[in-house]
Amino acid sequence: MDVIDLRSDTVSHPTPEMRQAMASAEVGDDVYGDDPTVNRLQELAARKMGKEAALFVSSGTMGNLIGVLAQCQRGDEAIMGTLAHTFLFEQGGISALGGVFPHTIPNQPDGTLKLDDIESAIRGEDVHFPISRLILLENTHNRCGGVVLTPDYTRQVAALAKKHTMNLHLDGARIFNAAAALGVEASELAKPADTVTFCLSKALCAPVGSMLCGSKEFIYKARRLRKQLGGGMRQAGVLAAAGIIAIEKMSLRLGEDHARARRLAEGMANIPGFHLDFGMPSTNMVFVSVDESIKYSAREIAERLSADGIKVGVTGDRRFRLVTHYWINDAAVEKTLSAFARLSK
Amino acid sequence: MDVIDLRSDTVSHPTPEMRQAMASAEVGDDVYGDDPTVNRLQELAARKMGKEAALFVSSGTMGNLIGVLAQCQRGDEAIMGTLAHTFLFEQGGISALGGVFPHTIPNQPDGTLKLDDIESAIRGEDVHFPISRLILLENTHNRCGGVVLTPDYTRQVAALAKKHTMNLHLDGARIFNAAAALGVEASELAKPADTVTFCLSKALCAPVGSMLCGSKEFIYKARRLRKQLGGGMRQAGVLAAAGIIAIEKMSLRLGEDHARARRLAEGMANIPGFHLDFGMPSTNMVFVSVDESIKYSAREIAERLSADGIKVGVTGDRRFRLVTHYWINDAAVEKTLSAFARLSK
Amino acid sequence: MDVIDLRSDTVSHPTPEMRQAMASAEVGDDVYGDDPTVNRLQELAARKMGKEAALFVSSGTMGNLIGVLAQCQRGDEAIMGTLAHTFLFEQGGISALGGVFPHTIPNQPDGTLKLDDIESAIRGEDVHFPISRLILLENTHNRCGGVVLTPDYTRQVAALAKKHTMNLHLDGARIFNAAAALGVEASELAKPADTVTFCLSKALCAPVGSMLCGSKEFIYKARRLRKQLGGGMRQAGVLAAAGIIAIEKMSLRLGEDHARARRLAEGMANIPGFHLDFGMPSTNMVFVSVDESIKYSAREIAERLSADGIKVGVTGDRRFRLVTHYWINDAAVEKTLSAFARLSK
Amino acid sequence: MDVIDLRSDTVSHPTPEMRQAMASAEVGDDVYGDDPTVNRLQELAARKMGKEAALFVSSGTMGNLIGVLAQCQRGDEAIMGTLAHTFLFEQGGISALGGVFPHTIPNQPDGTLKLDDIESAIRGEDVHFPISRLILLENTHNRCGGVVLTPDYTRQVAALAKKHTMNLHLDGARIFNAAAALGVEASELAKPADTVTFCLSKALCAPVGSMLCGSKEFIYKARRLRKQLGGGMRQAGVLAAAGIIAIEKMSLRLGEDHARARRLAEGMANIPGFHLDFGMPSTNMVFVSVDESIKYSAREIAERLSADGIKVGVTGDRRFRLVTHYWINDAAVEKTLSAFARLSK
Repeated sequence: MDVIDLRSDTVSHPTPEMRQAMASAEVGDDVYGDDPTVNRLQELAARKMGKEAALFVSSGTMGNLIGVLAQCQRGDEAIMGTLAHTFLFEQGGISALGGVFPHTIPNQPDGTLKLDDIESAIRGEDVHFPISRLILLENTHNRCGGVVLTPDYTRQVAALAKKHTMNLHLDGARIFNAAAALGVEASELAKPADTVTFCLSKALCAPVGSMLCGSKEFIYKARRLRKQLGGGMRQAGVLAAAGIIAIEKMSLRLGEDHARARRLAEGMANIPGFHLDFGMPSTNMVFVSVDESIKYSAREIAERLSADGIKVGVTGDRRFRLVTHYWINDAAVEKTLSAFARLSK
Repeated sequence: MDVIDLRSDTVSHPTPEMRQAMASAEVGDDVYGDDPTVNRLQELAARKMGKEAALFVSSGTMGNLIGVLAQCQRGDEAIMGTLAHTFLFEQGGISALGGVFPHTIPNQPDGTLKLDDIESAIRGEDVHFPISRLILLENTHNRCGGVVLTPDYTRQVAALAKKHTMNLHLDGARIFNAAAALGVEASELAKPADTVTFCLSKALCAPVGSMLCGSKEFIYKARRLRKQLGGGMRQAGVLAAAGIIAIEKMSLRLGEDHARARRLAEGMANIPGFHLDFGMPSTNMVFVSVDESIKYSAREIAERLSADGIKVGVTGDRRFRLVTHYWINDAAVEKTLSAFARLSK
Repeated sequence: MDVIDLRSDTVSHPTPEMRQAMASAEVGDDVYGDDPTVNRLQELAARKMGKEAALFVSSGTMGNLIGVLAQCQRGDEAIMGTLAHTFLFEQGGISALGGVFPHTIPNQPDGTLKLDDIESAIRGEDVHFPISRLILLENTHNRCGGVVLTPDYTRQVAALAKKHTMNLHLDGARIFNAAAALGVEASELAKPADTVTFCLSKALCAPVGSMLCGSKEFIYKARRLRKQLGGGMRQAGVLAAAGIIAIEKMSLRLGEDHARARRLAEGMANIPGFHLDFGMPSTNMVFVSVDESIKYSAREIAERLSADGIKVGVTGDRRFRLVTHYWINDAAVEKTLSAFARLSK
Repeated sequence: MDVIDLRSDTVSHPTPEMRQAMASAEVGDDVYGDDPTVNRLQELAARKMGKEAALFVSSGTMGNLIGVLAQCQRGDEAIMGTLAHTFLFEQGGISALGGVFPHTIPNQPDGTLKLDDIESAIRGEDVHFPISRLILLENTHNRCGGVVLTPDYTRQVAALAKKHTMNLHLDGARIFNAAAALGVEASELAKPADTVTFCLSKALCAPVGSMLCGSKEFIYKARRLRKQLGGGMRQAGVLAAAGIIAIEKMSLRLGEDHARARRLAEGMANIPGFHLDFGMPSTNMVFVSVDESIKYSAREIAERLSADGIKVGVTGDRRFRLVTHYWINDAAVEKTLSAFARLSK
């Protein structure tokens, strides 16, 4: 990658090793269940999450959509945070396509939902109410600053779900970042949830795809829903080959991204006019605000940096996001800080 | 009505005059547009709301559902309060049946939504976002204590909607109560909204039905949706006859209900252990909390009162609601207060 | 009724006895289950259909819609005839609102679906297929000429449904006409089906309403769906009072309507230029075609008859339908035949 | 590919050239519109179909689903053949996810729908009817034997659609096969349709993906729907690189597959006990029935052939399908015929 692209980790290109694996992948028609590489990836993903089975899907959005639709019917209610990716950034697909009713409650700054808020949101049995069926958590939590939920918190929410015969779905798009930050296995974070999505194409560098994991019965339904959505792919082994490397190798190096994110945050905090929105980063995301001492809007800053070969993600009039990943090395961090420092003058 | 039924004004029976009108109503097949009494009711309702046209529907829920579905397509977003009837008590039908995505923002104690909150909730154009299409207000606002929204506030929200090429739907289930409380015509409250629902079978005593009002083009769509939902009725004139009396006569006497609600509230506030949740009532609803000095839960209180021929609406462990209406006279208010006083000892 | 309205039996006005019953009906708030007249009607309807429970709904379309939605989830398939009312005349609501996939197979002239056709239409288990969940029959079958399905045929289809763990829903809008024509109890026709809808407001003269019948578990779901659709009504006892008379009394006199339909058909068959589409009527519907010897289109015929106070239902360029009901007496039949005879000259 | 896989052309593996292109593809984040290879593929596809714009989607099912959903809203009706892929093999997704009502009419043996049947199926304006919005054709028509629709027929259907202000969507999964068989440009077949889907991963050998083509306005909506479905992919250029080769090179060699299909059909016709269902193949599909002289069912035949390294697609108790593609050479055809001949003895 020529440019320093900090907009997101979704922009990360496949590694040379991934490209090689894709070129030589053993493939088959996955709609018939014949693709050995896809099957291998699915077994690997299930094992890593501590689940019975897994399904390769084309995106995190599709993973969450199928996760919700397989567990909620028309008119069921899903409880989630006001800052949940599924509420904010998935175009309302769970309602539009599945007739599921979202019930949002406030996310706390640490990415959690208060247990009391969840319990209050759960409806009793009454002809006026939808049936509360699913709770959604997100780990790491993107819009709360890439913060992590602990295994303990996740278990408490899972217990609450069980108590009300509800299910818990975990949007673990960046669950390996959470695991790295906490120093635990990803499966510890995933196990309390009934179902979990994680992405191969974000911090893990694979070009395309996410994994949806759960019980065999759930995955059977999920496979049907994937076909209904048109998400069934043929020789998907070419993508799965990269996915295997993503899980086996790339998940082990995320600490580097976190260290660079911290370095970036420290640097930014020292540049006059720039402020960290959520303090020091827990994982690979740095959210920055621009105060009035800077004469440029976030969009203007992004344009000026772009001329230097640096891309940042604008998230508000005077706010942006920097995300580290495999293609952001130490030099890129320093170059970025220098560029920002020049804008501050 | 033999019992003193304060659970809601929906429990109000038709008046003798309504029964007589129903028995002698001129009717026709309304699916063919042939029912003269329905047609007369629809013209009357439209005129009262300052709209081009109106449609008779079987409930407020159906009025709101059709109102939303006629203005939002699959995947469009409707912004409403966290305490909106449509969010709390309509079983999620707008998502379940119409694929509409609800976006809730906090209701203020006065029943309003902050203009800033609305504006923040409106999405820009981005492939990640649903299209923000509709704002919903509720007047009087049930869960905020039967409070009223002013014409001025409603106009401000309507202006905001227009600015973003969105529409405004008003759930005016009890709009005549709001009009009576404010001393304005109901049409003043309805006019800023693109579409409005109001109920004949709540404070207005008709046995069945609500009116959905808006432009002719909107009502054309609404009529189609009503048929799709199975809400088309045949000789609906028997119901419409009562509806005409509801609008023409019953809407003029709501001040009496409000006075009795205030009397009830004053009385309750003076009984030890009972507290008004929202202060003195604006319209016909009194929300009461029970403190720890009372040894009974709300449910137990309801059971004990029931033995005295008094029914109240339980809304929480230690909360209930009292609603005045045509069949609650001064004696009923005093009898109710005495019964509560006995429980307080 | 002043005019001779043969367009449909839906146009039938309530009888004087019904109006009286409506005016004096004991009522309550049916959303709370408090309306004694509605409860009485529901028990009566369930008993008449040989089912555990019943629910009052506002139309046959709502009865069928809820019947399908309570038994099919998003993406399930319902098998029905190409001439089924649910396919032709219910605006596609089962798909639009419930995400149900209709699978049509040809209706035979006698209103049946061939057992082989049904069996071929049922899908096996495959990720490419929806799940075949429900079979719909219609008795009497409107678009096949008001013909009747026998108990034996209905049992065969029910057995086929069971064999494939599917359900059978019977659109029995005019099931009492079928029972009268066959000389059997309506329950014999309804029993093989899991669920059945019948209408109070067609041949039975009630102003509004239909009944949906089935198991208690089904009716529990149906009641929830009715609320979701906005079909829950308050003091619905005013309508139910007429419904009770419809079932208890009006269902006993349908033989008269059938005799008059036969007289009408005989007369029409003898008027040059007019032909019976489906031969002699089985029940209360006469479908007529106009040949080229008549210089008027069906629409023009309808207009000319209208001037004589006679209304007929136009169903095609040169086709119309005549339906007998309570308000069509012998004199009306003869007057209608004379009017047609004049057009033939 | 080691085995002779005749089940479908979807099983075709990527060619070595495709694998090389995938390994070296220039990529970007396609959700941001940044993937140059995807952009190049989309421009190429649009040009080949004579449309303004195109969108890369993960399957033909997704292409058809988005095609229908972008042109039909909740409750709109889509007219298609009883043997249409969208009706038979896409799990009812258009209803389940989009609330679209399918209206099937009989496919003729040549894959067409009779113009009269289409016209009869189109509904007028009436509150009982859904709105007829879209006609679907399929070219080549899979279940009719891989037959081709001519440009002239397609134009006639398009004219009918226009006359009724409806749109025409073409499921051109194998449109290049149709073009090769007719000796015309694919764009001639696609031009009369408003929108068209074609597949890269069927006869054209690409591992994954289909193209959806139409006006710029349509593709704008389609891109939004793709995101809603979770079909947006990140570095999709790795797949698009293969897709470019599929269109530019593989589309030129389909005549070979057709010749081999004819050779296969001739051979099968000469083996006692085997019969061609649809006569000589128009394109790359041979449908075969097995008569009673053969003691094996289709499934047993498939098992026996499998032991010889030959796979066939079972489509009924005594029916199967053979599809030729890039990986089926002359030797494979002869080996297959020999294996069948042995079963016939």
